[in-house]
Amino acid sequence: MPIGEFSLIEQCFVSKAMHQHKHTVITNGDDASVHNLPSNHELVVSTDTAVQGVHWPHDFPLEKAADRAVCASLSDLAAMGADACWAWVSVIAEHKEALQSMGQGVTNALNRYEVELSGGDTVHAALNSLNITVAGILDKGTAMQRNKANIGDKVWFLGQAGLAALGLQQWLNGEKDGEFISHFSDVFPKIQQGRVLRELGVRCCIDVSDGIIQDANHIAKASNVLMELDVEEFPNWQSLCEELGTDKAMQVMLSGGEDYGLLFTAPTDMEGLDALATCVGVSLQGSGVKVQYKGEDVQLVKSGYDHFAV
Amino acid sequence: MPIGEFSLIEQCFVSKAMHQHKHTVITNGDDASVHNLPSNHELVVSTDTAVQGVHWPHDFPLEKAADRAVCASLSDLAAMGADACWAWVSVIAEHKEALQSMGQGVTNALNRYEVELSGGDTVHAALNSLNITVAGILDKGTAMQRNKANIGDKVWFLGQAGLAALGLQQWLNGEKDGEFISHFSDVFPKIQQGRVLRELGVRCCIDVSDGIIQDANHIAKASNVLMELDVEEFPNWQSLCEELGTDKAMQVMLSGGEDYGLLFTAPTDMEGLDALATCVGVSLQGSGVKVQYKGEDVQLVKSGYDHFAV
Repeated sequence: MPIGEFSLIEQCFVSKAMHQHKHTVITNGDDASVHNLPSNHELVVSTDTAVQGVHWPHDFPLEKAADRAVCASLSDLAAMGADACWAWVSVIAEHKEALQSMGQGVTNALNRYEVELSGGDTVHAALNSLNITVAGILDKGTAMQRNKANIGDKVWFLGQAGLAALGLQQWLNGEKDGEFISHFSDVFPKIQQGRVLRELGVRCCIDVSDGIIQDANHIAKASNVLMELDVEEFPNWQSLCEELGTDKAMQVMLSGGEDYGLLFTAPTDMEGLDALATCVGVSLQGSGVKVQYKGEDVQLVKSGYDHFAV
Repeated sequence: MPIGEFSLIEQCFVSKAMHQHKHTVITNGDDASVHNLPSNHELVVSTDTAVQGVHWPHDFPLEKAADRAVCASLSDLAAMGADACWAWVSVIAEHKEALQSMGQGVTNALNRYEVELSGGDTVHAALNSLNITVAGILDKGTAMQRNKANIGDKVWFLGQAGLAALGLQQWLNGEKDGEFISHFSDVFPKIQQGRVLRELGVRCCIDVSDGIIQDANHIAKASNVLMELDVEEFPNWQSLCEELGTDKAMQVMLSGGEDYGLLFTAPTDMEGLDALATCVGVSLQGSGVKVQYKGEDVQLVKSGYDHFAV
């Protein structure tokens, strides 16, 4: 018996999604989903597209790629300090098997983070890709933003930098497992940590998806400050150096962007941050990003991935 | 000077989007957008993906295709009776010119319906496509749903059926303009009308995107009723017949699905509907969809587009 589109969606996605959020009124299956928001809360929404051959290699397992894509989107909610509640997932798939693998990866990630699959779409076309829209909630007026860094703030980093980029490079060079590759395969959105930072009073945060320099530059530009970072303060600098030597480690750590750590700033007297993150620099009067290594300015070459670069 | 990704997004999308919604706190440009919801309201969200070569022909203008994609998504909000507020738009583009054309189409549609562009993503890859997530609001507990048809309800249709499908067919046959083609090119989401229906008390509605039969069947299944429709009652039946003859007109009208009309049910004594829509049938005890023509049952052959059909 032929399996139609609606049965496939049911089989690959809906039947595997385990969570319904307590603030959901109507979910997956009508023209749209309907949700309540508790009073004194705000809605936080982000969307991302991930494409085979662009965001993951052609020979990388689709199930893992879809899982990553969901986690990368959840990382945007983490950067705002939101609780993740809902996801709407659209998949373009080359064939049914690809749809099934991506459905498995999507629902694995959503179930792991107890996020509801609230709706979606599937299309059959000559490219495997996913669009993930995620929404969360937070207390009114508390969202962490890019434009809230103040002069004199300390700059903090929560997570690891460059390990996923190195893992991806290794995969492209023919290695198929190992420590660094698992850093690329397994994305851990810092949802819980983002919430804690927000509750501690942090107001300026970004998730590092495009590379430390590029994302630090987003804060610098939005907040009108100079972000001064010290390479050696990053938590995994030593291990990267041992693996790659100083020059390559610097390149991978500053420009590799797939680790989804949180870069944030906070007043010098804010307490409780040491247990969560590492101080990697300071926010100063000026503009742009300055990176130092052993007291000298590092010459920055490549600042992250740029779609449509010419 | 090279134009980077962020400048391109600014140039093609952000600078052209004209509306900021009064309930928006943070829009386009942070990791996520943040929104307030007025009390006693609910959030309504829908997502759709449109792909070149699947949802529009390869030689159809990209700007118009992107405009259509936004309008098709807004039609889902119309079917719930929601006010459209926000959109998040992700675009995969083969090259910069394609991105620019799609950006123009997206912002044309959003500006026309006064919907805010709240966020998005762009990817450079070998396929032109758009994912549109839209959100709106409505009074708590008033969303129109597929599962609210009652036995004895009248079935109503607001819009036109089959004209866009015929226009698409003509385009594929080499015609590049004409009345029917404009029905395919220009999608009019029935947002205002959906809101009025909801305020009149209508509780069961769907937008016809996959063909009358397929979408009527969604109501039948969700509400556990038989939807009995009379072909001759549809508002544009006569003009389709004159153009195509009875058999082909029936096929196009019942299975063509690109017109984005609203199919809804209401108790027989509900007033005010005649001015907005046409009564095309009745909801009865039973299951599925029965279509009649001059008192005889029509044999249904094809029931709408099915991605991944085998």
